Amino acid sequence: MAPTLNVKQATGNQSSWNTLLPDFPKGPLSKYRKKASFNWKEMAMFLDGEDIIRLKNRIFSALESDPFFARHPGEELSREKYQELTFLRCKRLFEYDFLTQQEIMENPLKILNLVICIGMYDWSPCLQFFLHCGVFGGTILSASKRFANFVKKIYNMEIFGCFALTELSHGTNTKGIRTTATFDHNTQEFIINSPDFEAAKFWVGNMGKHATHAIVYAQLYTPDGQCQGLHSFIVQIRDTKTLLPMPGVMVGDIGKKIGQNGLDNGFAMFHNVRIPKENILNITGDVSPEGKYSSSFTDVKERFSAALGSLSTGRILITAVSATNLKLALSIAIRFSATRRQFGPTDEEEIPVIEYQTQADLGREIHALSAASKPLSSWTAQQAAQECREACGGHGYLAMNRLGEIRNDNDPNCTYEGDNNVLLQQTSNYLMSWMNCIRNKVPFESPLGTINFLQDYHHIIGWKFKANSVDDCMDSSAPLAAYKWLVCYLLRESDLKLRKEKQSGHSDFEAKNNCQVYFCRSLAIAFVEQTVLQRYHDYTHDPNIPSTLQPVLKNLCALYGLWSLSKHLAVLYQGGYVSGEQAGRFIQNAILELCSRLKDDAVALVDVFAPPDFILNSPIGKASGEIPDSRRLLPQFKNQQRMQKGATILTSKLEKSIVQGEGGGTQCLAHQRGD
Amino acid sequence: MAPTLNVKQATGNQSSWNTLLPDFPKGPLSKYRKKASFNWKEMAMFLDGEDIIRLKNRIFSALESDPFFARHPGEELSREKYQELTFLRCKRLFEYDFLTQQEIMENPLKILNLVICIGMYDWSPCLQFFLHCGVFGGTILSASKRFANFVKKIYNMEIFGCFALTELSHGTNTKGIRTTATFDHNTQEFIINSPDFEAAKFWVGNMGKHATHAIVYAQLYTPDGQCQGLHSFIVQIRDTKTLLPMPGVMVGDIGKKIGQNGLDNGFAMFHNVRIPKENILNITGDVSPEGKYSSSFTDVKERFSAALGSLSTGRILITAVSATNLKLALSIAIRFSATRRQFGPTDEEEIPVIEYQTQADLGREIHALSAASKPLSSWTAQQAAQECREACGGHGYLAMNRLGEIRNDNDPNCTYEGDNNVLLQQTSNYLMSWMNCIRNKVPFESPLGTINFLQDYHHIIGWKFKANSVDDCMDSSAPLAAYKWLVCYLLRESDLKLRKEKQSGHSDFEAKNNCQVYFCRSLAIAFVEQTVLQRYHDYTHDPNIPSTLQPVLKNLCALYGLWSLSKHLAVLYQGGYVSGEQAGRFIQNAILELCSRLKDDAVALVDVFAPPDFILNSPIGKASGEIPDSRRLLPQFKNQQRMQKGATILTSKLEKSIVQGEGGGTQCLAHQRGD
Repeated sequence: MAPTLNVKQATGNQSSWNTLLPDFPKGPLSKYRKKASFNWKEMAMFLDGEDIIRLKNRIFSALESDPFFARHPGEELSREKYQELTFLRCKRLFEYDFLTQQEIMENPLKILNLVICIGMYDWSPCLQFFLHCGVFGGTILSASKRFANFVKKIYNMEIFGCFALTELSHGTNTKGIRTTATFDHNTQEFIINSPDFEAAKFWVGNMGKHATHAIVYAQLYTPDGQCQGLHSFIVQIRDTKTLLPMPGVMVGDIGKKIGQNGLDNGFAMFHNVRIPKENILNITGDVSPEGKYSSSFTDVKERFSAALGSLSTGRILITAVSATNLKLALSIAIRFSATRRQFGPTDEEEIPVIEYQTQADLGREIHALSAASKPLSSWTAQQAAQECREACGGHGYLAMNRLGEIRNDNDPNCTYEGDNNVLLQQTSNYLMSWMNCIRNKVPFESPLGTINFLQDYHHIIGWKFKANSVDDCMDSSAPLAAYKWLVCYLLRESDLKLRKEKQSGHSDFEAKNNCQVYFCRSLAIAFVEQTVLQRYHDYTHDPNIPSTLQPVLKNLCALYGLWSLSKHLAVLYQGGYVSGEQAGRFIQNAILELCSRLKDDAVALVDVFAPPDFILNSPIGKASGEIPDSRRLLPQFKNQQRMQKGATILTSKLEKSIVQGEGGGTQCLAHQRGD
Repeated sequence: MAPTLNVKQATGNQSSWNTLLPDFPKGPLSKYRKKASFNWKEMAMFLDGEDIIRLKNRIFSALESDPFFARHPGEELSREKYQELTFLRCKRLFEYDFLTQQEIMENPLKILNLVICIGMYDWSPCLQFFLHCGVFGGTILSASKRFANFVKKIYNMEIFGCFALTELSHGTNTKGIRTTATFDHNTQEFIINSPDFEAAKFWVGNMGKHATHAIVYAQLYTPDGQCQGLHSFIVQIRDTKTLLPMPGVMVGDIGKKIGQNGLDNGFAMFHNVRIPKENILNITGDVSPEGKYSSSFTDVKERFSAALGSLSTGRILITAVSATNLKLALSIAIRFSATRRQFGPTDEEEIPVIEYQTQADLGREIHALSAASKPLSSWTAQQAAQECREACGGHGYLAMNRLGEIRNDNDPNCTYEGDNNVLLQQTSNYLMSWMNCIRNKVPFESPLGTINFLQDYHHIIGWKFKANSVDDCMDSSAPLAAYKWLVCYLLRESDLKLRKEKQSGHSDFEAKNNCQVYFCRSLAIAFVEQTVLQRYHDYTHDPNIPSTLQPVLKNLCALYGLWSLSKHLAVLYQGGYVSGEQAGRFIQNAILELCSRLKDDAVALVDVFAPPDFILNSPIGKASGEIPDSRRLLPQFKNQQRMQKGATILTSKLEKSIVQGEGGGTQCLAHQRGD
């Protein structure tokens, strides 16, 4: 595989570091920063580059000085109020217009950084903004030039949009969607209809309260009664002035969720709602004025895939969202732990077929990768957020320290844009589709090259673990080799199991279902972990990396590889790759040794990715490590200093003011208690 | 080990089943109940017995018909209001007086069932009730007869109590507690003082808003300036009429938490607060009028342990709380999954020393067991609640379906009453304390017999996995034997590692710290899993179990054993207990086969432990399986039927009523958007 390294611009000089990345306030964490084996500013400059750091600083300081984004510690917002505030914040993000078109063209990664910066503040306004501009706006923008006027209104926020695919009874099974769009050639309109409650659009972000327009996925029926499959349509659902529902549209909010409650997820039912013919998003097919259907896709399966092509983008975004949540949780937990003491793409017409074929291969590979990276990242972030919560003990359990919010807000990443376990099946299906080439020794490769190593399958399957000491495991090449064997082994076992299941008379559906646990599911996870580790390994072993940063990056990569691999240790033994008591000990001891080496770097490492205190918004995760500040957030403690300076015994007047400041509910409770 | 079986009374006859356990409403789940291999009513009768079922029915129906306990779907309570309502509910629980003293004497397990039933409704009022009656009241009741008048007031709820041990900077490390109680023999008072903010009592349940009295743990200082160690004192913190803080007491609420927000956790600082001499809880020691200290414990360590003896009770309770949360989450997830379609003790004076010694042995064993059962159960419930949430997809993410609340309310179980990882160290310390006896082949046994199998250590360590087929793994005896080997192996490895660490010059503290991951921590977990599995195995293999129930119980036990064991498979291979590719496959295939066998029993199994729908309070977990009812909880859907019966196009009047019913915020937002 060709290394697709992304080594950023030079790290610049010390004075530019200090201008862009000012020192953190001195405090209990200062001594840990001095213990670090590297300079966190150099690392941040190396990883992000000056341009992205400037963008981050611009966004973070704009939010911090904007009253709409003020943090109100201890404030309890009702869901209704939180949704209103989220919408106002979303509107402010429009007004800021943080990125010019030119900046985006020069570096598309800036969009991702914009999303991450806003998300670090709060995912609700971030997702609302992204759903409108990116998912709703982006889909329409890429569909056809005839929506130019529409697009203008979107980016002026004259209209507000949502993306309505999922139905109450059909989320993962998109083929089962039952909303219909019937073409009436007499009026040149499509009639959008929900046959029953089970077919109501559901979970749709922005739809609950604010959206005026929706991209609605429906089964297209031509006047000849033929169903042409899933297509998308722009449907106005609310009046743009009054926000009242349009005739025939039943729309509302789905209610409180476990997290992300600022975002208004909604439902909608359509009762023969008529929309102009032009409102079909003619990406995969269109209808002539006479009602004749045409499509650039001859294959129904390919047409279906193209209709849902934009979903991979969502999964890739969720991968980034999960990684961001992991950064937030780690920033809080590592800083607190160091201070707490206790004991010691788009489609166009007329593309050459050969080009399209390649595009499909790339699309399949991106689909297979995003369908596994999303589960890996969302589960990793979910589990790590819980571990960070527990690592901070009771303080992690206090709402104001934000670890609960991070975990709860991350939770839907495991479900939306495809349930994690279902998505993993798509990755394993993709991998198993290469088994014929492997068996018949037919050469093959993929556009991104992630499966090219499988050409050496017959060789790799015979590999054995070669480490003879802990030292032999201290580089990521050791777990990487093990992963290559693991993917080949699980591929062979999954293929054998599937053929056995089919031979025993099971249907294709049953056979696949019986192959998931211990086989296909493990295969998909091992594959994506191997892919991530390969990239990480190539990146950290690149000679362009500053020598001051390379050791810590290599240690981190080795630790990630070994730690991930250790969860598969039973399979490595079972399949004979590893044998003997010592081999497992080498891996375990290497993990412990790397943890010990990285302990003193941990604070500086989170300094590299932690957002400013205002954004992180966690008293126990403050950059200075000055935890006692958290007491100021308790209104009761505002009087504390007065108390200690005052008389030995508090006057009853002062007591009263303390209790009254704390909330008047207590006195009526004494009464209710029957005194 | 003598089996300590707890086989309940006879299951009675079919007609008594139907009286006590009425049929569930017919619905989508009916066919799953018919597919079950056993009768859920017989199982419930067998497990609980008629007496406990009557108690549960009494509690559940009282709560369901009490307006104070009414469920208000979609209601958003502020934390303040939720705390008030919790206190009112706690007071109602007092008025119900569900258990007479006689009932408790006849069957102390009824208290546990009372706690579980109320907890299934909501943990906040349950914990508030238990903290006052059990922890606060129970501690004072068992301390001395001189508190009789006090006890009367507790059980009349004339005073309301809390248990203040933890300080802001010292939770797990109770020896580090810094609150002082200095005896002033001139006034015959103790002076309670918090030296600084770090020594403030913190996290104390009931203290935030409602408690009038606290049991305060403090370092006792006699007039000679000598510190006599940790003792507990009754301190009045609020006026019983006005609930205003007492002079010198600074008390308040600690703020919002991730879960259990109905419970008022609080903090308190004492500024030379004087309390009568009689208020010392003279369990471990007392002071004479002249200020001379006396104690029945000569050993300081033993005195310290006795002072904290009541903490094991808390951990045992948390084990039950976690198991209850697991039942709730499973009831919801299994019922939903079956309907959702997509693709196919006390101390007294003058006890003989020999008796006391035994008591200490029992105390140590109970401590070692509770210190590991709490981590096992709280982590299992936490992970399972998350898996149940994900298994229910988006519906699991909706707040009204309660899986988020269950997970968030379960979360503190991992931290309070001792952090899980710290507690596990105490279990491994206990186990490793037997290594000298093992090495020197000195006979030993423990009061509950849980470590007696270690006498066969030298024999067990040579065992090998004997299964030659999947069938050989289908009984819990297979994983049980593996667990015995695993505990012995991890004990040996932990002991070797510790000695090696000490030999290399590390201090005792460092050496122990370096032995946790992969060694002592794994040992403690394997030991408690082995203990649970041994009990479970003995229970399910008892000849007294009705033949109609035994197969499903045996399958469940085997599945639990194999599933738990599979997480240790790498160690089994590494240590040579298991070898070859097939052995691992036998275990994996047995797990898959047992899952397949139990699939049709799953609905009936949750029927055995699920509380009534009112208590379970999850639309997707209803006993009938009639999920569409959930739409009625959305206020927007109340108009739906009208719409479908009405004209093709909704009149704008109806639209308006729908939007207005949903909340008036939308119109002002249209305005704010600048239209």
